[in-house]
Amino acid sequence: MASEFKTHDHEVRGTGFKHLTPVREAIRILFANLPSEPLSTETVSLSTALGRILAEDITSLMDCPPVDKAAMDGLAVSAEDTYGATPSAPLFLKLVGKVDIGTIPDVHVGKGEAASIVTGGQMPERTNAVVMVEFTKTHENGLVEIWSDVHPNENVARAGEDVRKGRIVLKRGTRALPQDIGMMSQLGLDEIRVVRKPRIAVLSTGNELSDGTLTPEKTPDANRPALISAVHELGCEAIDLGIVSDDSNQIRERLLLGLRSADIVIVTAGTSVGPEDDMPHIINSLGKPGMLVHGIAMRPSMPTGLAVVNGKPVISLPGYPVSAYLAFVEFVKPLVAHMVRSDFLPEPVIKARLNRRIAGILGSRTYVRVRITLRNEEFTAEPVRTSGAGILSSLVQANGFIIIPENAEGYEEGQAVNVQLFRPYER
Amino acid sequence: MASEFKTHDHEVRGTGFKHLTPVREAIRILFANLPSEPLSTETVSLSTALGRILAEDITSLMDCPPVDKAAMDGLAVSAEDTYGATPSAPLFLKLVGKVDIGTIPDVHVGKGEAASIVTGGQMPERTNAVVMVEFTKTHENGLVEIWSDVHPNENVARAGEDVRKGRIVLKRGTRALPQDIGMMSQLGLDEIRVVRKPRIAVLSTGNELSDGTLTPEKTPDANRPALISAVHELGCEAIDLGIVSDDSNQIRERLLLGLRSADIVIVTAGTSVGPEDDMPHIINSLGKPGMLVHGIAMRPSMPTGLAVVNGKPVISLPGYPVSAYLAFVEFVKPLVAHMVRSDFLPEPVIKARLNRRIAGILGSRTYVRVRITLRNEEFTAEPVRTSGAGILSSLVQANGFIIIPENAEGYEEGQAVNVQLFRPYER
Repeated sequence: MASEFKTHDHEVRGTGFKHLTPVREAIRILFANLPSEPLSTETVSLSTALGRILAEDITSLMDCPPVDKAAMDGLAVSAEDTYGATPSAPLFLKLVGKVDIGTIPDVHVGKGEAASIVTGGQMPERTNAVVMVEFTKTHENGLVEIWSDVHPNENVARAGEDVRKGRIVLKRGTRALPQDIGMMSQLGLDEIRVVRKPRIAVLSTGNELSDGTLTPEKTPDANRPALISAVHELGCEAIDLGIVSDDSNQIRERLLLGLRSADIVIVTAGTSVGPEDDMPHIINSLGKPGMLVHGIAMRPSMPTGLAVVNGKPVISLPGYPVSAYLAFVEFVKPLVAHMVRSDFLPEPVIKARLNRRIAGILGSRTYVRVRITLRNEEFTAEPVRTSGAGILSSLVQANGFIIIPENAEGYEEGQAVNVQLFRPYER
Repeated sequence: MASEFKTHDHEVRGTGFKHLTPVREAIRILFANLPSEPLSTETVSLSTALGRILAEDITSLMDCPPVDKAAMDGLAVSAEDTYGATPSAPLFLKLVGKVDIGTIPDVHVGKGEAASIVTGGQMPERTNAVVMVEFTKTHENGLVEIWSDVHPNENVARAGEDVRKGRIVLKRGTRALPQDIGMMSQLGLDEIRVVRKPRIAVLSTGNELSDGTLTPEKTPDANRPALISAVHELGCEAIDLGIVSDDSNQIRERLLLGLRSADIVIVTAGTSVGPEDDMPHIINSLGKPGMLVHGIAMRPSMPTGLAVVNGKPVISLPGYPVSAYLAFVEFVKPLVAHMVRSDFLPEPVIKARLNRRIAGILGSRTYVRVRITLRNEEFTAEPVRTSGAGILSSLVQANGFIIIPENAEGYEEGQAVNVQLFRPYER
């Protein structure tokens, strides 16, 4: 995809980059350079399958329900024996027995006869409808009075009406929801074949980072803990590659370790165009094709780099925590969906009125963090005041994003705009 | 709340219930009967805190960043030494050293002097701005040329600009997102206090149910596996109470076991008004106040019962899997939010055009399962054809609900309606 690296006569003003690639195009380039083989699969017990991606179609090996069953409590009858019954002209049937639920009925129901049955009971032979208990009265002489007629199959759950034998019930690529687990249980499955969870390795780089201990010269690493949590949130396994200082050899070695153990490698910092921003060269030294896109038309997160090394994606995120997290959401989330061949449920989007003007950057997609409140049945979006991508508290205070597209200069105060919610709004 | 049990002269037509309680009112009654003490709390390591509810405010014990830092690569300078520098009239400063990132700077920067610095490096004393590297050129004579001036604090991340010492960064009741984990990491926390996960016990009842093995007279239990998965999806702990047959004493004993070990008990089936529907009496025999609401103005799931026994909610769900699951979503999900004192993110809602008419039931809230497809940038909602609440495959085929409110007769073909998505739509 070398043709994608169009170099312009001068850099994009103030960015240090010769060219910025639009988000959508960057994703397209990344996907086009990935191998087409899907992830391998594994068998899991149904009780741990929530959220896993089905690796094969689930076909029913039987009818559900397997036999005709009562769908109401009442009397199992032959419908024609009830024709004409009304409150003013009731009919009488002979009560010949009772169907016990969970058993094969041993009661014989002949012409003009009925058996009492409860919901879920198997319909006895020669019966085809249920008169609801509300429309019946049992007399002491062994007769039962009915004052409502039923047509054939009325109040009966027919064999196979839920699922016919041989039908595909759940398609490969489905992310298993609770009701799907219930369905597969009903089909008698106790294990299913699912796509292996993608393994995502996360490395932080920077001499200034400490792993927890607070000293005047070091900063606790915010990126790795946030990104590892984000990996878990996507239903993937995280591999913690730790922190390394700004040393090309150490970074290189740790990335190789990640490439051996993971399906995706994420590394933060060193991805800009300054004198110490070595990441593109380090990644290119690992294998082919190397860096595919460096510099994205989005703010924040512009210095993000997307690479593929020997068939595995390597995502080079900016060191600023807000940039790193937004680029993760924008690139790693679709990448995971692509690898497991299954979309995520979209985020909730609400319409809110801006309480002040927000500016975009023409040519770049701009992410504005906002705080949403609901008052008088209307949502108000208040942009979180922040001076940069280093302000992690902006993502902590916000409950949504407004995305200003590449071709828009911004949105006006009072304008109703779409907000992607990531936290509940305040009431 | 006995006054809520208004009995009418005759039952609600065809339901067997004297009175149906609207969904919102049913929830209000349930909450009003719960004790006001919150769940207990526990300490967890930050690395396992994703999705947990903060049990106390998180206050910063320090400024973030703790000291002024460079926000760009370039030269650390005193801003006034740069005034007037332009490309046509550059200024020269004496380069006196370099700030190593992750160290306390030992370089002394005097008047007319500069030190090279990279993003994140601590600003040396007597410097207050950074000239971006793009606007500088270092000469061999130890001088550095600059052609852009900077104002005080330009390109500097000020101490405390992200978070000021003593500020509340995250409020009690927040559900921890990845960025919150990052923020708490940055504050040097490695453990936090969170609300204990609610424990929800799930019991299935019914002579007809089998726990997996397929026989002609038994049905594998779909409800318990689905509901236990749904419990996990809400971030709660599930306690599997298994299956018991329709025997009041056995059910009673198992429910008492649930009440001893769980915060919420869920039981399915036996909750209608038929001759074998004993659940209300069993639950009332367990303790006070017992059943608060029985019969909800919603379809499906009408026979749902809401009870409180000795301070713990007991939710009696219908046996039909669709009814059970919908009532879980409608009642157990808000109940959990209420118990942990934290809302869930709302479901995504899209506007879709109905491809055929759907009917509601006046006075009841009706849930219509639909299949959403996106064609020509418009969503189409196709109601999933089904004849009842027993048809679990309808919830498996659907990717969304349309909720027809109590006061609406239905929606017309071609009408644009709100659809609550629970699966990605097809493209």
